[in-house]
Amino acid sequence: MTELLEEAPPVDERSVGMTETHHSTLFEPPSELRLGCRSKFGPVTVAWETYGELSPARDNAIFICHALTGDAHAAGWHANAKKPGWWDGFIGPGKGVDTNKYFVICANILGGCMGTTGPGSINPETGERFCRDFPVITVGDMVEVHAELVRSFGIERLLAVVGGSLGGMQVLEWAARFPDRLDAAVVLASAANMSAQGIAFNAVGRRAIVTDPQYNAGKYYGEAGPRYGLALARMVAHITYLSEASIERKFGRRLQDSEELAYSLLRETEFQVESYLHYQGKRFVERFDANSYLYLTKAMDYFNLADSYGSLANALGRTDAHFLVISYSSDWLFPSSQSREIVRALLERRRHVTFAEFDSPFGHDSFLIDVEGLEKMVVPFLHRTLETRRKKESGVSRQESGEKPSE
Amino acid sequence: MTELLEEAPPVDERSVGMTETHHSTLFEPPSELRLGCRSKFGPVTVAWETYGELSPARDNAIFICHALTGDAHAAGWHANAKKPGWWDGFIGPGKGVDTNKYFVICANILGGCMGTTGPGSINPETGERFCRDFPVITVGDMVEVHAELVRSFGIERLLAVVGGSLGGMQVLEWAARFPDRLDAAVVLASAANMSAQGIAFNAVGRRAIVTDPQYNAGKYYGEAGPRYGLALARMVAHITYLSEASIERKFGRRLQDSEELAYSLLRETEFQVESYLHYQGKRFVERFDANSYLYLTKAMDYFNLADSYGSLANALGRTDAHFLVISYSSDWLFPSSQSREIVRALLERRRHVTFAEFDSPFGHDSFLIDVEGLEKMVVPFLHRTLETRRKKESGVSRQESGEKPSE
Repeated sequence: MTELLEEAPPVDERSVGMTETHHSTLFEPPSELRLGCRSKFGPVTVAWETYGELSPARDNAIFICHALTGDAHAAGWHANAKKPGWWDGFIGPGKGVDTNKYFVICANILGGCMGTTGPGSINPETGERFCRDFPVITVGDMVEVHAELVRSFGIERLLAVVGGSLGGMQVLEWAARFPDRLDAAVVLASAANMSAQGIAFNAVGRRAIVTDPQYNAGKYYGEAGPRYGLALARMVAHITYLSEASIERKFGRRLQDSEELAYSLLRETEFQVESYLHYQGKRFVERFDANSYLYLTKAMDYFNLADSYGSLANALGRTDAHFLVISYSSDWLFPSSQSREIVRALLERRRHVTFAEFDSPFGHDSFLIDVEGLEKMVVPFLHRTLETRRKKESGVSRQESGEKPSE
Repeated sequence: MTELLEEAPPVDERSVGMTETHHSTLFEPPSELRLGCRSKFGPVTVAWETYGELSPARDNAIFICHALTGDAHAAGWHANAKKPGWWDGFIGPGKGVDTNKYFVICANILGGCMGTTGPGSINPETGERFCRDFPVITVGDMVEVHAELVRSFGIERLLAVVGGSLGGMQVLEWAARFPDRLDAAVVLASAANMSAQGIAFNAVGRRAIVTDPQYNAGKYYGEAGPRYGLALARMVAHITYLSEASIERKFGRRLQDSEELAYSLLRETEFQVESYLHYQGKRFVERFDANSYLYLTKAMDYFNLADSYGSLANALGRTDAHFLVISYSSDWLFPSSQSREIVRALLERRRHVTFAEFDSPFGHDSFLIDVEGLEKMVVPFLHRTLETRRKKESGVSRQESGEKPSE
């Protein structure tokens, strides 16, 4: 299976090269973060990376929102890493998000476990890890933190905010919460609210974690922790990221390391698809924190833009940003119907939106896999956005200096 | 939620009334059951029920194959029960399988935990429960046991074998294994092999059970047992039995016992869909044995008719039985494409098959829920089957007695 191969970094002229994760501390006293749950929180450390150069006019910044288990390391290579950043196929010189033209920012989300403050971080008030004393957070809180980070870079208005899945939810929240701070929104394989089926799968994952005796009410740091539960949560989630067709094509009923059925229940990874899922579960446990998984899936479940802003049209009608909405025909976790809802709300308010349903076979994960298809839509969309912005701003500055804008 | 209501048995003129589960012991020495795994097994106790009257010619017997977690109690009421048999809407006087006309048999499957020998039964050789010493069984083994039961009733040829899901797999196996012992096969929401996605979900369920510390390598009888693991397995399976649309319509994002979000991770059943799943898991643990769940899901995963008989056409071309194949548009666990495969194989061998894809919203569970739609197809199908058989047999007996068959 190709995804199990771990090779040396290939020579790639379209790579951003070596990158490093940086950390900023925001919301230090007396400032504080007002959370969706109405309590206050801070300080918050945020892990972030940037690629490309910020233009002197600071008008070419694109913020990348990562999905449930992503991190700030979206592109390029870390020292001694076996794999590049999680969206390396899409971000780089000459790629879908072209770092020759754009200044790209990606940051780990609040509640995560990849450098940004989360339940595994030290609570400065107690000197102990937060564990379950960490507040329940929302997608709005994640965006609030990232908006503050962007502000700290001296960027008032982003050229675009881009993300898929939970990342797409953040993009929508950016548009609703900071309508004047983005020119464009790229929403991939996402939805304006979590579906009941999505909540159901998340609930199963959380249940697997909290019923693992090693979970110990969230106080497992320094111990083995709920390894079985977290692996199980990942296994079930991973199935929902693939399509029935892609899982059939990729594995079918092929056996792992055997020509014949074993007729044994002890052989837990008899079929290739079982082996693959077990491997995914095991690998996930090595890199992800169970408490973060609980908090972040809960934030997804809570996400409901229509409810937060009265209606979806109200939420999205606040901004003049141009939208690019993309769904995938084989995505059954975030089906196209949910993208169409977003498009309908935008059209209701006569906003500018481009919508495409891609006929990709890879299910929900398509936005991570089919980067070539994405590139074809995103490159001209971002190009137009930057052109429009520069035209408008040169018009504004001419007007400000008393010149008549040319036709 | 209506399915949580537990009411007194309603007065129902179309009910088979009070029923009782009987037990037969088969494969007693020197006879024995040759299993698919090539080892031998016996004796086997089988739990069964019958409804209606066997005709003097013994030509009106219909065998009902139950699905993964079903049992012999398909119709009518047990004393003090709160619910009727699992397919009571479909089996009874004047119903889809009309017990005024047909003699209906239903029996618990081998490996189960509802009266037929399974991993929780006593191993006569040791006086202890089998636990994981129970052999790994196949759908073929289940059918072999039920065929022997039918034989023990003095019935040489069934009018029909009927089942959905794993029950439908048994129907297909009946047709392939005992081609001369049935006039008709009714295959609902099923497949000639388990899909890779289906195997994946089953693997997750099994993993939840065996990683529960209370599982204790299968030796948990008399103890609490893997309650959390088995409940989790059921929760994830239950999602796959519903459609995205039905779960959305039934629960949406409605909260349980609250008007507002709790912003707490301790509230595990905040959304109605969470509450529903938790309830389903809890209830399942009360009635089902975890070892049986492991063995039966493994049998499903192993099921591959094409592989067992060289090809699907070979498997199904052995019988002259008439087929009724029904799939459901919203069933994503056993999608219509899998039913079409069965139909194609039958047509390739010029066999008689009626196929319908029902536009039911209830997902895989549709065959248990939409019994009215089913009735419309099944009633005339069974009627024609019986007519054809009786015509043929009266022709045969006239011919045997030297009479000329009338036109």
